[in-house]
Amino acid sequence: MAKKLYHGAAYYPELWNEKVIEEDILLMKEAGINVARMGEFAWHTMEQEEGNIDIRFFVDIVHKLHENGIETVMCTPTPTPPIWFTHNHPERMYVSQNHTVMGHGSRQHACTNHPYFRKKANEITEHIAKAVGSLPGVIGWQIDNEFKCHVSECMCEQCRTLWHQWLEERYETIEQLNEAWGTKIWSQYYYSFDQVPQPGPAPFLHNSSLSTMYRQFSMEKIAEFSDSQAEIIRQYSDAPITHNSNVPFSVDNERLFENLDFASFDTYASQENKASYLMNCDLWRNFKKGRDFWIMETSTSHAASLESYASPHANGYLRAEAIASYALGGEAFCYWLWRQQRAGCEQPHGSVISAWGKPTVGFQSVLDVEEMRKKVEPFMVATKPQQADIAITYSDQAKAFFQTEPHQQMDFRSLVTNFYNHFVSLGVHRDLIPEKESLQDYKLLFTPFLPYISDEYRKRAVDFVKSGGTWIVGPLSGGRTKEHTIHTNAALGELEEIAGIEALYTYPMDGTGSVGHAFGEKAPLVLWSTVFEYDEQTAVGTIAGGNSDGKAFITESKVGKGKIVHIGSLPVEEDGDSLLMKLIDHYATEAGVSVRTDVTNGTIVAPRIDDEGKQSWVIVNMDGEGGSVTIPEKAMDRLTEEMISAGRLEIGPYEYRIISF
Amino acid sequence: MAKKLYHGAAYYPELWNEKVIEEDILLMKEAGINVARMGEFAWHTMEQEEGNIDIRFFVDIVHKLHENGIETVMCTPTPTPPIWFTHNHPERMYVSQNHTVMGHGSRQHACTNHPYFRKKANEITEHIAKAVGSLPGVIGWQIDNEFKCHVSECMCEQCRTLWHQWLEERYETIEQLNEAWGTKIWSQYYYSFDQVPQPGPAPFLHNSSLSTMYRQFSMEKIAEFSDSQAEIIRQYSDAPITHNSNVPFSVDNERLFENLDFASFDTYASQENKASYLMNCDLWRNFKKGRDFWIMETSTSHAASLESYASPHANGYLRAEAIASYALGGEAFCYWLWRQQRAGCEQPHGSVISAWGKPTVGFQSVLDVEEMRKKVEPFMVATKPQQADIAITYSDQAKAFFQTEPHQQMDFRSLVTNFYNHFVSLGVHRDLIPEKESLQDYKLLFTPFLPYISDEYRKRAVDFVKSGGTWIVGPLSGGRTKEHTIHTNAALGELEEIAGIEALYTYPMDGTGSVGHAFGEKAPLVLWSTVFEYDEQTAVGTIAGGNSDGKAFITESKVGKGKIVHIGSLPVEEDGDSLLMKLIDHYATEAGVSVRTDVTNGTIVAPRIDDEGKQSWVIVNMDGEGGSVTIPEKAMDRLTEEMISAGRLEIGPYEYRIISF
Amino acid sequence: MAKKLYHGAAYYPELWNEKVIEEDILLMKEAGINVARMGEFAWHTMEQEEGNIDIRFFVDIVHKLHENGIETVMCTPTPTPPIWFTHNHPERMYVSQNHTVMGHGSRQHACTNHPYFRKKANEITEHIAKAVGSLPGVIGWQIDNEFKCHVSECMCEQCRTLWHQWLEERYETIEQLNEAWGTKIWSQYYYSFDQVPQPGPAPFLHNSSLSTMYRQFSMEKIAEFSDSQAEIIRQYSDAPITHNSNVPFSVDNERLFENLDFASFDTYASQENKASYLMNCDLWRNFKKGRDFWIMETSTSHAASLESYASPHANGYLRAEAIASYALGGEAFCYWLWRQQRAGCEQPHGSVISAWGKPTVGFQSVLDVEEMRKKVEPFMVATKPQQADIAITYSDQAKAFFQTEPHQQMDFRSLVTNFYNHFVSLGVHRDLIPEKESLQDYKLLFTPFLPYISDEYRKRAVDFVKSGGTWIVGPLSGGRTKEHTIHTNAALGELEEIAGIEALYTYPMDGTGSVGHAFGEKAPLVLWSTVFEYDEQTAVGTIAGGNSDGKAFITESKVGKGKIVHIGSLPVEEDGDSLLMKLIDHYATEAGVSVRTDVTNGTIVAPRIDDEGKQSWVIVNMDGEGGSVTIPEKAMDRLTEEMISAGRLEIGPYEYRIISF
Repeated sequence: MAKKLYHGAAYYPELWNEKVIEEDILLMKEAGINVARMGEFAWHTMEQEEGNIDIRFFVDIVHKLHENGIETVMCTPTPTPPIWFTHNHPERMYVSQNHTVMGHGSRQHACTNHPYFRKKANEITEHIAKAVGSLPGVIGWQIDNEFKCHVSECMCEQCRTLWHQWLEERYETIEQLNEAWGTKIWSQYYYSFDQVPQPGPAPFLHNSSLSTMYRQFSMEKIAEFSDSQAEIIRQYSDAPITHNSNVPFSVDNERLFENLDFASFDTYASQENKASYLMNCDLWRNFKKGRDFWIMETSTSHAASLESYASPHANGYLRAEAIASYALGGEAFCYWLWRQQRAGCEQPHGSVISAWGKPTVGFQSVLDVEEMRKKVEPFMVATKPQQADIAITYSDQAKAFFQTEPHQQMDFRSLVTNFYNHFVSLGVHRDLIPEKESLQDYKLLFTPFLPYISDEYRKRAVDFVKSGGTWIVGPLSGGRTKEHTIHTNAALGELEEIAGIEALYTYPMDGTGSVGHAFGEKAPLVLWSTVFEYDEQTAVGTIAGGNSDGKAFITESKVGKGKIVHIGSLPVEEDGDSLLMKLIDHYATEAGVSVRTDVTNGTIVAPRIDDEGKQSWVIVNMDGEGGSVTIPEKAMDRLTEEMISAGRLEIGPYEYRIISF
Repeated sequence: MAKKLYHGAAYYPELWNEKVIEEDILLMKEAGINVARMGEFAWHTMEQEEGNIDIRFFVDIVHKLHENGIETVMCTPTPTPPIWFTHNHPERMYVSQNHTVMGHGSRQHACTNHPYFRKKANEITEHIAKAVGSLPGVIGWQIDNEFKCHVSECMCEQCRTLWHQWLEERYETIEQLNEAWGTKIWSQYYYSFDQVPQPGPAPFLHNSSLSTMYRQFSMEKIAEFSDSQAEIIRQYSDAPITHNSNVPFSVDNERLFENLDFASFDTYASQENKASYLMNCDLWRNFKKGRDFWIMETSTSHAASLESYASPHANGYLRAEAIASYALGGEAFCYWLWRQQRAGCEQPHGSVISAWGKPTVGFQSVLDVEEMRKKVEPFMVATKPQQADIAITYSDQAKAFFQTEPHQQMDFRSLVTNFYNHFVSLGVHRDLIPEKESLQDYKLLFTPFLPYISDEYRKRAVDFVKSGGTWIVGPLSGGRTKEHTIHTNAALGELEEIAGIEALYTYPMDGTGSVGHAFGEKAPLVLWSTVFEYDEQTAVGTIAGGNSDGKAFITESKVGKGKIVHIGSLPVEEDGDSLLMKLIDHYATEAGVSVRTDVTNGTIVAPRIDDEGKQSWVIVNMDGEGGSVTIPEKAMDRLTEEMISAGRLEIGPYEYRIISF
Repeated sequence: MAKKLYHGAAYYPELWNEKVIEEDILLMKEAGINVARMGEFAWHTMEQEEGNIDIRFFVDIVHKLHENGIETVMCTPTPTPPIWFTHNHPERMYVSQNHTVMGHGSRQHACTNHPYFRKKANEITEHIAKAVGSLPGVIGWQIDNEFKCHVSECMCEQCRTLWHQWLEERYETIEQLNEAWGTKIWSQYYYSFDQVPQPGPAPFLHNSSLSTMYRQFSMEKIAEFSDSQAEIIRQYSDAPITHNSNVPFSVDNERLFENLDFASFDTYASQENKASYLMNCDLWRNFKKGRDFWIMETSTSHAASLESYASPHANGYLRAEAIASYALGGEAFCYWLWRQQRAGCEQPHGSVISAWGKPTVGFQSVLDVEEMRKKVEPFMVATKPQQADIAITYSDQAKAFFQTEPHQQMDFRSLVTNFYNHFVSLGVHRDLIPEKESLQDYKLLFTPFLPYISDEYRKRAVDFVKSGGTWIVGPLSGGRTKEHTIHTNAALGELEEIAGIEALYTYPMDGTGSVGHAFGEKAPLVLWSTVFEYDEQTAVGTIAGGNSDGKAFITESKVGKGKIVHIGSLPVEEDGDSLLMKLIDHYATEAGVSVRTDVTNGTIVAPRIDDEGKQSWVIVNMDGEGGSVTIPEKAMDRLTEEMISAGRLEIGPYEYRIISF
């Protein structure tokens, strides 16, 4: 891909006639669409008869688009196997947790682990790659579509067999599995791998190890499928490959992107939930560090299906989203979808053009985005996102642990998003990084909501600390083993000895009247909590009231040149937010975090640097209320080329500014 | 049936011994019950051995009743096939959406499309018709009971085959089905009819066309069963035939009553929901226009089962219900049930007599009804309901569309009832008419909540407009095709050109702050909305705020001698009610609607006319608070024969008056 | 068992290694644990190969415990059959109401009625009994664990066959079943027992008789299994046998304990719900009257699983619970569990020791209990609970009736607990007694929420009345027959004639504005209600407003030397509580109830007597707020041996006192 900013849309030419397609391409040019994504549900169009594959329709479209200056991201059509694949073949279908076998007509109805599915998926992908792989205008690939967005772990017979193989590879002997999972409990004990059940219907809960490992198995298998697809494409095409994922899907995104070339995500976050939108940008930027991410799907106005719809964005918000994503490392901002579906089950979904070919309610916003894109492209191309001083670890393995063990109906995504949002509110630039990502050049590392801290991770984090970093662990981190069991040496395992702290016990603080005091703030404590012995040397947060009056819930230990801080409980409500922000502020200040701004809530600053290290700020008002930011020194407006003096800079509703220092 | 007013009860003599039956008949006479409905669950009693049918028990009862002045509505017993039909025959049973096969012991457990069911149902019905058809006292027939009240679309194998046949008849070639449903989407495409699935378990939603067509198929099949039953009965009996239906059941009532002789419904609306009660009267009157309807079931005090119960009506309400229904075109007011069940699952349900043979809490109300009935019968027999100036289209096909596409968990019935209630509140007399009903003699036609407006309907409505009528379309009308897809020529298809309006786009207005201004009122706008370009010529309602500031949401176009008005969005909350009532009032006034009264809320006026066209009003207080109405000119009280002067007439709590002008 | 007070814990040595076990036993001694319960999930450990049973591991543990002064309650391990039992044997598994077959990995996954399950359960139990039955330290047995806590009525094929046999034994001929159940309704009628379905999936409700009888069948079968297990154990051991049950489980506790030696229960009631805790004590004391009960499981701090947790008890509450239970007839107070699970699905559950061997948040409370236990043991051993003057009938058969017929989502347990709590609030000592328990020496009998009053019960109650007792029937009692049908002679059957009262009718009073007046109080009336004709002689509670203005809802009739009082409706809200408490107070005073105290709410008094009949009071503050009680005469503090003068005695938060008169 040439370095540029993309403005794209999902396109389904297979659903329309030639006349409409021509009209579409003209309208795309008018709207400033420079990339189209195609083919992800078009298996039928490509292989109308089983074994008889014909990609010519899409080859033509790619040419037509290219002739009109529109590039293509080509997809593999594997989420929707045709009727010849599914009809009279229940054994090829996805089976839900309660053993319901899926039928044809929706998507993700096939088991992606079935050998015939893999065979046919490989075939179709090879044909597409061959036909389209070297066409002019094909600048990228997307494998499948939103893996596991409608389904999670399949319970079919085929998966049962693969599950047993996977377990054998992981544990080698059944005795090691039994020991690891503690299966003597409730006489679960297995004598051979083929006896180990899938976590289907049972009178009560399954063993946590079984449940979590089945999720890991499933996440590994879908990544393995992705890998195999990528491998095929690479034989025929140099264009980079991605997948359009998101946080809530039942995948391990870090593992999934491991063998892909660039990262992309789909987002339908409401305007109220812009924290979730920004978090995705800060996270996806780091799945393929140094390589810009794509927003592969977002709605021009609102998401919807036959059964529900969201409120549309206010006019102005779409452009704010777009500039924010470009500034935070996005290369492309693409809509789902170009032309409203006339049939199917998503007709009410927002689009650029209606089914009858007219501008939709979001069309003007699309034009606004395009106008902005043209203005900012030179700047964006000349700069890149600045690395933050602060890293926050994000883990889909943790997500799986929380699915198995939600304690009080906890929603992992909300917990993480709320925690993340404190950094945004403080104007602190931050990277969300996957578990295995390097800690190089960070000053502060946060590890919240990570029940299992691997030896590998802990070692890297401790090294980071020894060289002067500050590692802030918790809430809810470190209390589980790799196998989703409890440590038997200490509440937090090795971590306690390393940090020189002593966790006394763990219990749920909800409803106990426990109040946490720290950093001059006090707030109610909730969730499953780790309580530490009070020790003058280490206690920086103490508990008043409840069952553990006088004990500590935040500890701080010097290790090497740095510090390990442990947060044992979650301060909540408005006071809890204040306490956590004070904590972040305290350690950010102490660690000399410099990439931060004095920006009002609802407005964001995305710092970028050019090759010479010169810093620029992209300032965007996201809440439609306007805001302001303190400009620390004289700077230049990159769009007007006017100079801006130091001091408070006002930003209008949904307005954006680019200033360079 | 001789022209009279019926006061009836559902009767289950097969459940009691001879002594109790004798006691019952005496008590019925005491309570003024002049018609009994029987037999709808008595298949076992009639065919104790498979193939050995004996109706003598019911012949005797019919005679006994008749000897005591009580007439009979005889039922076919098909909702409850006996154990010899069901035992060891899962293939004959109803299968739910998630593929659960029903067992014996409740009702509607059999698939009404199974050929053996049809065979046995025809046999038993023929025997009953033969035995009972010409007995004195048999004044009517009811087929089965509350079709599809517990179940909706069956997913059994038999239905699958019939579904494929039905599709073939409808679409002729699979290619036409594919085109109509847009099945290239998600590679749903079918190569033969037998591949088309039933809308069973799937990871996400089915194609809207598939879902809606399966509902239509199911509604057609149950009507077809009803037709075949009626045909058999007619061979042996001249008594008219009905079915006891209701709005929420999964049937198309217009189609169902097409081949029946009179319309009847069951109602258990609470006192608070009297709008629903009145709407049924205004609708059922028009399923068989010119022929009085029956209320076949209502409770003397409260509905109940083992698992729930409603609060009983206040004393006085039952009589108000009864007089209201007689006045609005009801010929019969019948209770479910005469004697409380001693066994089964509905023992707690209200009745006339308890299981131990004593008056229930509702008994005095039954006596009150009977006293009233006797008083008003001469008047009712001499008059008939006056046709309204206003027609509101009601469609169960629309109900099916909304089941497939509920947007925001919308409840079709509530939407329609709330809309309907504005007319009642305004004191405007109204007819709810089925889709195919003639528009003759109406001045105003409302078409709310009708996603698909058929060509046939549109043509009739436009003709009506051209001759001077006013057609008010929407909210939520006209945006879908026959196949439940989106129009591709214009948001509202042909309608736009005809009305000379331009719909810009459609989107959900909830949460956007859009405010509608029209007829001097303003109100929040919600639901899936159609927005029109602002045009001085046509805009009568405009939008302020939100995403479409300055556009129109209500348009008015002159067409021929009349007008087409389009309501593109739903004004809600108290202000929305005001706006809609102003709209109705405006167009009613403009169209010269004369059948309306100045009545206080909670009191209703039902206008009736005699053969000479002389108008009378039946005034009923329904809310127990009393009210008043302006009498426009001197009139006569039909019951006291006293003259009433023009001016305000007070009505006491639950009181009724009949006045003639 | 030697007469002493037990302080115990559930112990799972099979899950830990030798070193941990040694550590555990030392820690148990430290914590004052003198009894351990073991083995209930250890089937795998005992029978690692099908047919090869080896109990030596547990024999060793019993010895080790005994050597350390810790006695053992040995369990049979039948809730968790090993994988060799379940793998590839779906026909042995529990089948849910919707026909889902359970898999391995949780507990209660097997059908306890399957013949192979019974065979293997008997074998393992015989081996355990043989090996452990006469070991020193084995002081008791527990059969299985919490029967039917996760499951209710199994719907497997085996159960179908047994159901048919059970029906044949109960009804002898199918005609008698048909008559009893009124199966002519809805053509349910059966020609042979093998046609009678299990109450599985159906479009609507099953016949109430079918549903209730299936529950009774299931409760009888699980008790029969318990009986057979006990019989085997008795061949090898003299130690008494129990089962750890609770109110919400799908068992008939009275029937279950019939053939067991002592009663025990598990309780995880929250501190807020201490009424539930106390009710269990007052009820379980009477399942084996004269024999102390055990609390076999309770949490040191909080209950939890992977999917939920409760808030921990406040510090101090555990000791209050323990002393309250000892005082109310408890012999043992045992924790679930000793050492936190490291694996499985209950890791977050409270325990005495954590998985890493340290004291938990509840540990100090355990030490406090032990300190108390030692102090009070001499007193407790020398006295026994005093019988109350008031008996309240508790029935799990009634629970089954309410499950079939919940009317308005009624929760039987809450209804009963709320009713019970009025007695606690009034400081009236009370016995909850099972249906068949003798009425000897009571003055007042309450029979609330007992839909079916058996002839046997009624006769005993009437005899009790004739000899001078007061029998207070209702609310919601007496309106159903043995077969869960409605009486056909009178609303309350024979009872009306006996009491000389006339029930007019029954109906739900909710939402009707009916207000009950009685004992100088007035309160809204709700629930399914029985209304009586107003009669000066009998009416003591009258209804104002609603549908039955002026009728009676409480009647009082003199019968022999005593009285029958009928409560026909439930007074609710704060006023309803007052009314009911006035009623209780009125009849308690009238009947000369002397075992009552003037204690503040939140503090309880448990009266005990010694062999010479001398009364003592155990006073416990349960709400942490402290309270007071009037000491009627000079008394002695049994722990300090100080004298206490008559008058008000203050009790501190969670404090307890033992005083003797």
